[in-house]
Amino acid sequence: MTDVQDLMQKLQRAGDSKIVLLVADGLGGLPTTPGRKTELETANTPNFDALAKTGTLGLSTPVLPGITPGSGPGHLGLFGYDPLRYNIGRGVLEGLGIDFELGPNDVAIRGNYCTLDDDGNITDRRAGRIASDIGEKLCAKLDTIEIEGVEVFVKPVKEYRLVIVFRGEGLGGEINDTDPQRTGVPPLDPLARDDASAKTVEVAQEFLRQAREILKDDAPANFLTLRGIAKKPAIPTFEEVYGLRAAAVAVYPMYRGLARLVGMDVLDAGATLDTQMDCLEAAWNDYDFFFVHFKYTDSTGEDGNFDAKVARTEEVDTCVPRITALKPDVFIVTGDHSTPAKMRSHSWHPVPVLLSSDLCRPDACESFGEDACLRGGLGQFEAKYLMPLALANAGRLEKYGA
Amino acid sequence: MTDVQDLMQKLQRAGDSKIVLLVADGLGGLPTTPGRKTELETANTPNFDALAKTGTLGLSTPVLPGITPGSGPGHLGLFGYDPLRYNIGRGVLEGLGIDFELGPNDVAIRGNYCTLDDDGNITDRRAGRIASDIGEKLCAKLDTIEIEGVEVFVKPVKEYRLVIVFRGEGLGGEINDTDPQRTGVPPLDPLARDDASAKTVEVAQEFLRQAREILKDDAPANFLTLRGIAKKPAIPTFEEVYGLRAAAVAVYPMYRGLARLVGMDVLDAGATLDTQMDCLEAAWNDYDFFFVHFKYTDSTGEDGNFDAKVARTEEVDTCVPRITALKPDVFIVTGDHSTPAKMRSHSWHPVPVLLSSDLCRPDACESFGEDACLRGGLGQFEAKYLMPLALANAGRLEKYGA
Repeated sequence: MTDVQDLMQKLQRAGDSKIVLLVADGLGGLPTTPGRKTELETANTPNFDALAKTGTLGLSTPVLPGITPGSGPGHLGLFGYDPLRYNIGRGVLEGLGIDFELGPNDVAIRGNYCTLDDDGNITDRRAGRIASDIGEKLCAKLDTIEIEGVEVFVKPVKEYRLVIVFRGEGLGGEINDTDPQRTGVPPLDPLARDDASAKTVEVAQEFLRQAREILKDDAPANFLTLRGIAKKPAIPTFEEVYGLRAAAVAVYPMYRGLARLVGMDVLDAGATLDTQMDCLEAAWNDYDFFFVHFKYTDSTGEDGNFDAKVARTEEVDTCVPRITALKPDVFIVTGDHSTPAKMRSHSWHPVPVLLSSDLCRPDACESFGEDACLRGGLGQFEAKYLMPLALANAGRLEKYGA
Repeated sequence: MTDVQDLMQKLQRAGDSKIVLLVADGLGGLPTTPGRKTELETANTPNFDALAKTGTLGLSTPVLPGITPGSGPGHLGLFGYDPLRYNIGRGVLEGLGIDFELGPNDVAIRGNYCTLDDDGNITDRRAGRIASDIGEKLCAKLDTIEIEGVEVFVKPVKEYRLVIVFRGEGLGGEINDTDPQRTGVPPLDPLARDDASAKTVEVAQEFLRQAREILKDDAPANFLTLRGIAKKPAIPTFEEVYGLRAAAVAVYPMYRGLARLVGMDVLDAGATLDTQMDCLEAAWNDYDFFFVHFKYTDSTGEDGNFDAKVARTEEVDTCVPRITALKPDVFIVTGDHSTPAKMRSHSWHPVPVLLSSDLCRPDACESFGEDACLRGGLGQFEAKYLMPLALANAGRLEKYGA
């Protein structure tokens, strides 16, 4: 079957129209009690509602019905990349999450410090959840490891978590985890799943040998396991697929990294919605597409705090006037997945979508919320079709066929 | 593209939640006069309606828009198996329909008694639709046929219809029908479509040689044709795909067979809804998933009896309280296809779906019927996505990607 992106590549049309994609992470929700409203329906969002009156609404399915996406697949879908075709390994996502710039010769690994007993068996897979400053010191020690023919980077993430990157020619990324997922047994040996990864296994073995020596007196963190070993997937860029000069206005490293993965320029957006709007305004003339990311609708949902998620939803609504003042040709408000406070986690529930453009076919919806979106003109659709809709509304797609 | 079941296999999460799938066969219908209600909308179904108020509705497409499914593809779709990927041969379905336990070395064939004239040409492809008791006697005679190297089973179905099974090593199932689909010509010779089926052709030829001798004085049923020659497809089980211990609470052999095909335990369910509910209650602690099948919404539809279908719909509604009393985590009510009394046959019309769970996103629907389902939160979706939705609502799926 033709991937929708192959079609985009063929049909892309140059222009000077501008698209803003405002992602309120985890936007979709659930009522906590039957008959009540969701977070978005409870929130007072006069600006979203005004857009809903003239725009069109819908619900997007991030991956497939029933499938709960992580942040990687959630954003890839929004960016128009089939999340079942492009798989981002855990190691790569962790690397993106600490703003590490991964190149094509890099193998990225998520590491966990762990505790070994005298027999070499794991007694704690998270090394007693050591404090972040201890993790940082240990990473600095491991960062000194030298292996012939490759560069080695060891960076702390948080507590017992770290990122390891091997950089060099001829390194495959198909290696199993060394974390046995239980205690009382030794870590597993790294094994290659394909020929191209044989050299990576040798590097990993040498790394683990030196690490065991370096960490031997650092109990409870006297060793580490390797997980999610992966290379950055080869992904065509936004410019290639859509012909768009794209910029990310995101605060959190993971989302900046995901944007970088698809070739967006990552702008200096500061740390607040206000500074993000400053950044957007300053860069307005230099790009065709802007990805604006707001994290806190997701994190409050993950905390299970319904009221805080409502407040964060109202907060993101307040940035709308500064965006509409720029007169984007297409303005989309949505999330990468749902994060209902009721579930304290990402979920599979379809995600509210609001698309505002001079060319959209308006529907009867008067406000922005899950129930209204169910009756919206965009219907229910897979997230990967959002970009084609955005481009169409921006006049950036040629007709298909004669 | 990744099959959704490959994804299920990767994402399945163990748990102790329970799912009930209540299938009212042929549930979807049509109004007999424009502006009137369907069978389901006419029926008084207070229990379904109560579930609809707190749950969520939708419409499922069994195969693709416009495609009318048989019972096989209809149920495969509900069970989450792409009905376009898994093809169940007619012979296999007939075998399942008479409760014949087909194994991996079995080739199943649907037979039709027919009438030959003195020149060996077919004069009646259904042997004058002989009575079932005559068909049974003839099958008993044919069941004595012995062929070296294989076991032969000949079982009556109804009237002129029978099932033949060849059991043995190295028997392929790729053979054409011998029914020429017209009279005045002799039956066709069995021919192999692949090398693996050469031996099966020899067996079939020997079977037909002996059958011709045995039946020669039994006009109008003095010979038979072979159709739908097929082996049971290799289908991953419910346990493999979903990690579910699944049980079928079904009365009719065909549905018991379809359940067996996907690895469900087939329970002794008696012959009525009441005994089915007894069976469900007795087995409640032993399984994670229950497929409860009710036949009569389909058969009354096939009879073209609108009122009888309404009454049967009301009958199946009455079993709801015994199911909800068991407190399933997910309770789904749907059909495998539509069978509008107006059409006296299966049809392609989307099928009403009701999903009730603590984690579903409620919609505004207040009753269970085709029109309400059209406005339901599940939208319109392919039937194969019902199982992912069921698993998600049951907390039995991990997140996809990091």
